[in-house]
Amino acid sequence: MDKFEVVAGNGLLHRRAFLRGSSAFAAAVTGYALARTATAAPLADAPWSREMGAVMPPVQVPSRFEKQVVRTLSNPNNELRNSHARTPHQMLQGTITPASLHFTINHSGVPDIDPAQHKLAIHGMVRQPLVFTVESLSRYPMVSRMGFVECGGNSAPMFSNEPIQATAQALHGLVSSSEWTGVPLAVLLDEAGVDPKAKWFIAEGADSLALSRSIPLKKGLDDAMVALYQNGERLMPGNGYPMRLLLPGYEGNMNVKFLRRIKLIDQPAMSYYESRTYSQILPSGKAYRFYFLQEVKSFITHPSFGHALKGPGFYEISGVAYSGNGRIAKVLVSADGGKSWGEAALQEPVLPKAFTRFRMPWRWDGRPVVLQSRAWDEAGGVQPLRAEFVAQRGETKKPPSPLAFPNQHYNSLTSWAVDDKGEIKHVYA
Amino acid sequence: MDKFEVVAGNGLLHRRAFLRGSSAFAAAVTGYALARTATAAPLADAPWSREMGAVMPPVQVPSRFEKQVVRTLSNPNNELRNSHARTPHQMLQGTITPASLHFTINHSGVPDIDPAQHKLAIHGMVRQPLVFTVESLSRYPMVSRMGFVECGGNSAPMFSNEPIQATAQALHGLVSSSEWTGVPLAVLLDEAGVDPKAKWFIAEGADSLALSRSIPLKKGLDDAMVALYQNGERLMPGNGYPMRLLLPGYEGNMNVKFLRRIKLIDQPAMSYYESRTYSQILPSGKAYRFYFLQEVKSFITHPSFGHALKGPGFYEISGVAYSGNGRIAKVLVSADGGKSWGEAALQEPVLPKAFTRFRMPWRWDGRPVVLQSRAWDEAGGVQPLRAEFVAQRGETKKPPSPLAFPNQHYNSLTSWAVDDKGEIKHVYA
Repeated sequence: MDKFEVVAGNGLLHRRAFLRGSSAFAAAVTGYALARTATAAPLADAPWSREMGAVMPPVQVPSRFEKQVVRTLSNPNNELRNSHARTPHQMLQGTITPASLHFTINHSGVPDIDPAQHKLAIHGMVRQPLVFTVESLSRYPMVSRMGFVECGGNSAPMFSNEPIQATAQALHGLVSSSEWTGVPLAVLLDEAGVDPKAKWFIAEGADSLALSRSIPLKKGLDDAMVALYQNGERLMPGNGYPMRLLLPGYEGNMNVKFLRRIKLIDQPAMSYYESRTYSQILPSGKAYRFYFLQEVKSFITHPSFGHALKGPGFYEISGVAYSGNGRIAKVLVSADGGKSWGEAALQEPVLPKAFTRFRMPWRWDGRPVVLQSRAWDEAGGVQPLRAEFVAQRGETKKPPSPLAFPNQHYNSLTSWAVDDKGEIKHVYA
Repeated sequence: MDKFEVVAGNGLLHRRAFLRGSSAFAAAVTGYALARTATAAPLADAPWSREMGAVMPPVQVPSRFEKQVVRTLSNPNNELRNSHARTPHQMLQGTITPASLHFTINHSGVPDIDPAQHKLAIHGMVRQPLVFTVESLSRYPMVSRMGFVECGGNSAPMFSNEPIQATAQALHGLVSSSEWTGVPLAVLLDEAGVDPKAKWFIAEGADSLALSRSIPLKKGLDDAMVALYQNGERLMPGNGYPMRLLLPGYEGNMNVKFLRRIKLIDQPAMSYYESRTYSQILPSGKAYRFYFLQEVKSFITHPSFGHALKGPGFYEISGVAYSGNGRIAKVLVSADGGKSWGEAALQEPVLPKAFTRFRMPWRWDGRPVVLQSRAWDEAGGVQPLRAEFVAQRGETKKPPSPLAFPNQHYNSLTSWAVDDKGEIKHVYA
């Protein structure tokens, strides 16, 4: 008797297969068969079973055997340009990105801000301009929420007309998801008193770049937050310490880090970063105006480029899905390059605008396959197929400059081809 | 017009006060009044606004201004005895404990385990004994869940008949909450095939202590997990790397770390740790047999001992609540030592057997108050009042030895007295 039900081509199994645990001694079920049979010999004592272990540190760090689990850096010598540090998705599991591994993009290094000196001003079209400190903010009512932050330029290598052979980290490492805790921006705006004629605000950072973005006031009054904590502790320096704007579901750079100014205005300011760097160029040469939302997206992290399958048999396919529109409604997985699809299990709780881990049981027969995932959100959004996406948004052969080719808001599919040796390549399918 | 509704003595406010954000320019509401009014002078540029910041690290660490946010150690010189490292709750927010700050108790130091050499055997009353490696386990179906782990001896100082003046970390730092990801133990037991006569299993760790505990098989088939990941990354060395047993809601030491053996048996083994160290001594001198569950509990983290209130006005009272029985149903907060109570807001999502952050708006009039929290769970459990608790479980003056006085499973209330200077003491009220 086979306990697994095949639901799609090349061995995809019903997502509830693994919930049918049986404890019947006599049940002759076909199991996963991934463990070795124990021999009669007792377990040998390893060296760490025979001696006192090391001293406990005040702040824990990962095992020395996990040294490869790091962010990759685009500018390790801190030259006078921007820096990217990417999250190693292919080595993580669950739904939380550890703060130590959260992605960072800074345009002028990581500032060393004294929280006792830092101030946030709310001014412009308000009844009463106000200045907040970390200490005064800490007395206001707080909220916590799980939330992903994604750079608008995440997955930019996917615009290449040839699939670039690289890990999920290199392709999609500019998105991470954390629990953020801070003060609802609506509370602070209410405190200042918003002029009914105000429709936008400019948010500005305190680092030497002073990145500024115009944001619709409606978003500021909806679910925006001045975040002080990330996964329970104070924000990391690269993620905006001591305070950042959080705009759930909006592109990363608008979630202004090192937040020092919110100015209420009646029209967008057309700042440098919104009109130039973070504009989405279309094949016509024109650009979208204000493409704020990070739309529904998913990618498979296990298995993915850099992993190797160790022979036929059972594997779990898993990855992350998320949408700036709200909750993930459904993720389908294919093992035959999109010819047939099976529905993945979604790890509960499925939270809005946060990572959802999807999982799909799979029995590989050892022949070549192409793995894909495709996500839907509760607003009806769906990841476009690559052909549709490229037709609308373009692709490029050799980008002469980062501004001359489309490089923003990729949310189409990612395909991993597994060959008969278990090696994995990035393909377009 | 006052936007806040008083719901209990000494200034406790309705929990939804802060959700009534208003953006009306002309609304004359009484606000929080915690920010300073901005002057006409522009924001001065701080040093970090004038120069390029530091290089981005591969693994982020907190700001140098957060050096005080560490675990406190009971055995910093690693003498030949157990070691406790406590979570600094009074400096954290939200619901997640960063892995770096998760509490650890080890009885023989932190072992340095090579994950390629580590093995987990499932044997005893099974159809087929099996051996699992980290690699083979990584192919099985996984689940993720938020879950607290609490030492049975957490809050032991609360058994003293005089309130000990210490932080939430010193009193309650042996509980933490994380997202754990791993393989359901039921899947692995199913793979081995459980003999219907088996009723218990012994779990044993691979460190030199080889701590072992007997666990009802029912729990193993319910929500137990062999956890490989903690908050998205591999387990920390102090929390069981490369794999640990997770028994949601059961006392910490049963969640055996460095898990190397699960042996199915037909009766409890009465191992050293279950019959001696982790037994609960009652005033009669007898001990409870098998007190596994960590019952419903809460404590206020903000404000708490070590904090100082800076004058009258608005504050948010917040803390954590959790229960081994499931979800938190309700948290009440008192500012008058239990004479009157108001209901706190619970941060969504409220998850079973995990930290729930509660928040209570409060306007302090500057006079002495006593803050308390009291939690209920969905199973009808409630934190006992201190008088009830002490009558049943005892208290002690000067403990001659850790085994001669009650020191396990404290889940009564914690009271923080704020004096008219804003200084905070630990009291019994």
